[in-house]
Order: sequence, then C-alpha cells, then structure tokens
Amino acid sequence: MSTQPPLLFALDLIGTFVFGLNGALTALRVTHLDVVGVVTLGMMTALGGGVIRDVLIGAVPPATFLYWPYFTLAVAGALIAFVLNRWLDRVGMSITVLDAVGLSVFAVIGASKAVEFGLGAGPAMLLGVITAVGGGTIRDALVGQVPTVLRSELYAIPALVAAAITVAAIGLDVYGLAAALGAVAVCFAIRMLGVRYNLNAPRPPGFSETS
Amino acid sequence: MSTQPPLLFALDLIGTFVFGLNGALTALRVTHLDVVGVVTLGMMTALGGGVIRDVLIGAVPPATFLYWPYFTLAVAGALIAFVLNRWLDRVGMSITVLDAVGLSVFAVIGASKAVEFGLGAGPAMLLGVITAVGGGTIRDALVGQVPTVLRSELYAIPALVAAAITVAAIGLDVYGLAAALGAVAVCFAIRMLGVRYNLNAPRPPGFSETS
Amino acid sequence: MSTQPPLLFALDLIGTFVFGLNGALTALRVTHLDVVGVVTLGMMTALGGGVIRDVLIGAVPPATFLYWPYFTLAVAGALIAFVLNRWLDRVGMSITVLDAVGLSVFAVIGASKAVEFGLGAGPAMLLGVITAVGGGTIRDALVGQVPTVLRSELYAIPALVAAAITVAAIGLDVYGLAAALGAVAVCFAIRMLGVRYNLNAPRPPGFSETS
Repeated sequence: MSTQPPLLFALDLIGTFVFGLNGALTALRVTHLDVVGVVTLGMMTALGGGVIRDVLIGAVPPATFLYWPYFTLAVAGALIAFVLNRWLDRVGMSITVLDAVGLSVFAVIGASKAVEFGLGAGPAMLLGVITAVGGGTIRDALVGQVPTVLRSELYAIPALVAAAITVAAIGLDVYGLAAALGAVAVCFAIRMLGVRYNLNAPRPPGFSETS
Repeated sequence: MSTQPPLLFALDLIGTFVFGLNGALTALRVTHLDVVGVVTLGMMTALGGGVIRDVLIGAVPPATFLYWPYFTLAVAGALIAFVLNRWLDRVGMSITVLDAVGLSVFAVIGASKAVEFGLGAGPAMLLGVITAVGGGTIRDALVGQVPTVLRSELYAIPALVAAAITVAAIGLDVYGLAAALGAVAVCFAIRMLGVRYNLNAPRPPGFSETS
Repeated sequence: MSTQPPLLFALDLIGTFVFGLNGALTALRVTHLDVVGVVTLGMMTALGGGVIRDVLIGAVPPATFLYWPYFTLAVAGALIAFVLNRWLDRVGMSITVLDAVGLSVFAVIGASKAVEFGLGAGPAMLLGVITAVGGGTIRDALVGQVPTVLRSELYAIPALVAAAITVAAIGLDVYGLAAALGAVAVCFAIRMLGVRYNLNAPRPPGFSETS
C-alpha cells in the first residue's frame, strides 16, 4: 500500500475507518455487546477484506500488520461508534451508507493492489470484489446473519463495476486519484440506488416462496 | 494444477462445475436469493476448498485466480442451476449427489496437489479432506446451517479414504487416471451408501437427547 | 515451533490438547454430533488459531501440517472428550476452564512466534490475540453461536495482556519458561475472574435492551 499515491492511501484509510464505524454499529444494533466485542467486530469488518486480499496475493504479513494507521483507524472508528452511537443515529449516519462507502473504496483499492502484485485483469477484478465484500461477510457470519453479499440487494455488482473501472484505467495508464474517485462514486451510486429503490438482480425462473 | 495429466485437470474442472451447481441449488432452496447471491454462493462452494488448500500449501495466488476455467465453470454451474432449477429437480439431480461428486473429486485432487508441493503422506491426506469439505463448509456457514462435515452422516471419512488411496498410489508410483477414478469411485460409493442407509459414525457413550 | 525451547513447545502441545477436548465437548453439548463431527470440531478448535497465525505470518504450510504431535494431540483430546464426556462433566472439567487454558497458552505462543518471524511489538501482540481466539471463533461460528470473543465476558483482553507480557519479555531479553508461564497465569487468572464475577467491559452509553 505504501507504494500507492498518497491520496489513494488516504482513500484506503477512509475505507478502514468507515468499516470500523459500520462493524461497531452492527455489533451495537444486531446483538448487544460490550466495548471489547464492539471494537473486535469493528476491527474484523474494517480489516478482514484487506487481510483476505493480502493472503490471496501472497502479501504476508498483510498490510494491516505492518502499517499501524489501519489498525488505529479501525479501532478509532469502532470506539467512536461505541461512544456516539445515539448521536450517529440522530444525524442519520446509517450502517448502510457507511457500508456502501467502504464497499466502494475497497473494491478500487483491492483491484489496484492485485494488479500491482502481477495479477491479470480478470483475477484483479475478482480480488477487488473479495476485498470489498470480505469484511462485511465476516461481520455478518459472526453475528449469525446471511451475508449482505448473498441477500437480495445489488451489492457485489457495484463492487465489480468499480473494480472493472479501476483495472481498465490502469490498463489505459490513466489510473490516478480522478479515476479512483470516479470508480468509487459509480460504485457508491449504484449501491445506494439499489438500496433506495430496493432494486434486485433477477429472480430465478419459476421462483416461489415455497422451498 | 497445470502440471497434472490433462485428464486429472479435467476431473478438477468437473468437481468445480458440480460444486457450482450444488452451491447455487443450496442458495435457491435453503434461502431465497437473487441471481447474484446464487452465483456468489455457487462460486464460494466451488472455489472455496481449492483456495484454502492453495493458501495452506503456499501456492498463492491460488490456481482459481490464475486459470480461468475454474472461475468460468463455477459461474456456469451456478447459472445453469439458477435457470434450470426446476428441471434439475424433476430429473432427480439432487444437491446431495452433486455434493458427493465434488467431495470425491476434490479429495483426490487436493491430496495429489499437496504431495506435489512436498507435503508428507499424513499432511497430504489432511489437505485432501480440507479441499473436499472446505467449499461446502463455507457454503453451510454462510447460510446459517451447521456444516455437513459436522452433522451426522458419513462425510469426512469417505474423503479421507479417497485421499489415502491417492497418497498410497503416488507412493507406489501407480498414480494416474485409473487410480484417481478408483479413489473417486470409492469415496462416492461410501458417501452415497451413508446417505442411502442413513449410516452414522458411532454416537458418544451415554448419549441422550438432553443437552 | 521446533526452534522454541522444548518446554515452550510442550506448552503449545498442552494448548492444542485442551482445545481439542474443549471443541469436542462443545460439539457434544451444543449440538449432537457423531464421533467424526466431534473429532472434526475438536481439531478445528485446536488447530484453527495456529493455522490462521501461520498463514498470516507466511509460515506455510502451517506447523500443524508439518509436526504430527499437533494433529495427534488435537484428535486425542477430542476422542477422550467423546469417550469420557460424562466423567469429565462429573469431575467438573468444564468447557470454560479448558477454553481459558487454551486461550492463555496460545496468546503467549502466538505472540512469541510472530516476534520470531520478524513482526514488530504491536503486530505480534495482535497475532497473539488472533492465535488465542481463532480456534474458538471458528468453533462458535460453525455451531451457530455468536463467538465468545464478541460476547460479554472478558475474553480478548486477558489474551492481549498475555501477548503484551510475552512481547515485553522478549524485548527485555528475559523470555523463557518463567516469563511464559507467568503470562499464561495472568491471562488465565483474568479470564477466570471475569467468568466467576461475570465481569464485563463497559457497556455503551445510553445502552438499552431495545435494538
């Protein structure tokens, strides 16, 4: 990560911070946990996707263990969520919006880091999606929910779009802050439109509620 | 994988395809998901075991990210399950049979790849079992079921038998398509007999339904 | 692990054995499993934390796959729990006590192995905690419980204290059996006091039972 332009590194840290907030708020709302449980779930949500990405591309120890800003921001996000839980609720800082920000940022960072480590276009896109959805999937599995990535709203698709834009921009040698922010914005917009209008990908033919 | 005889590579791809079908059918029956959720669970089921295996033996990035046939067949299996769900049901293509095929194939491939990477006989057998049960365990954990490998039918044992046959055949220098297919057939037969006659491994002494 | 002083290696094996017992007892009490399910959950609990640690520090294949004592002791612990379930219950060998022993030992071993692989003080402490809580978290996730590390008793904190003592002792060049046992004892004492007096870390401000 340290070889990335400073502004992209900043983007990565923003993603870590908002996923820390998000995981901690989930811990507070879905299941009642004490401060250690809240911080732990915040950390797992914030750092899980990046750790999986780094293990898969062979970048061990993962960046999280080498660069302290990640760890610090994940814990800071979780502690802020713990203390300001009610206030965040009042100002409408929802779990869903935070999750969409983290999803968008991590899809871009994950894809660009995979390219940096020599993966081809397709695998790099896949790694982008895994980075984006990894932390939230760990979060959901640990609190006993079916992960968002499997549930009915558009979730993996916007991450895939952002990763594809990132890989294309790198291939065209135009990757930089503008391209990264553009990819983030597109992912965020698709995700929030999906939430807003409750858009889903197609249901199976002959789908019925009986299982 | 690319260094394996072509027919064993084909076997690996068959396992990937049937686990893609299997994971997608599970997504459709256990919990109602849209097409992205179905394909995602199919991919995780099909590719999860191999990714865990490759991470554990240090073969990163995992084969899945390097050779597109894996990814393509996992997605193809999941999409076919999505579209032909009802028809597959009518022709009796059950989740259990598909799972048994994938289990058998992956136990053999996992064990042989572990030997190829220098692991001893015992660890290679263990890796075979982990490859075989890994994808299904991820699938079950994400949809909130106790994994098949922990539940009451013979599941890990046939995979262990197939992995043992594979390792023995390699040790005796008679490993090839015949040995691999033999190991697959033995695993499949034990597993299906276990399902058919509801065979279980021994229960604990003094076991009662009260917990 | 083989480069550690023999008595620390022994400590690691003790942790593996008690976590094997613990995971198997959990399998017997939380959900009714046959012998294969019981042994499988025992193995995952006993070996999971160390495997995650080794993958994260790049020590692949993990020690578990290279040194048979780990595997053997995990299985032995699980089989003993399977056979002597009722007797262990009568003599008061509880799941909680076994878990606290494993937690304490693995926090120390995990932190010291991370330092040995070149990680800094902070990351090594984090690795210690991950090693300590990893196996139990896998165990809980697979049987559908919210993991202990997220629930309300002091759990991650004693592991963090033990890892910190370990890292400090290594830094001061006084690490040896005495320091290791001291760190284990402190972790075990904090954990058991937390269980005994139902101590929890602070709850969030304005916490209420409504979610």
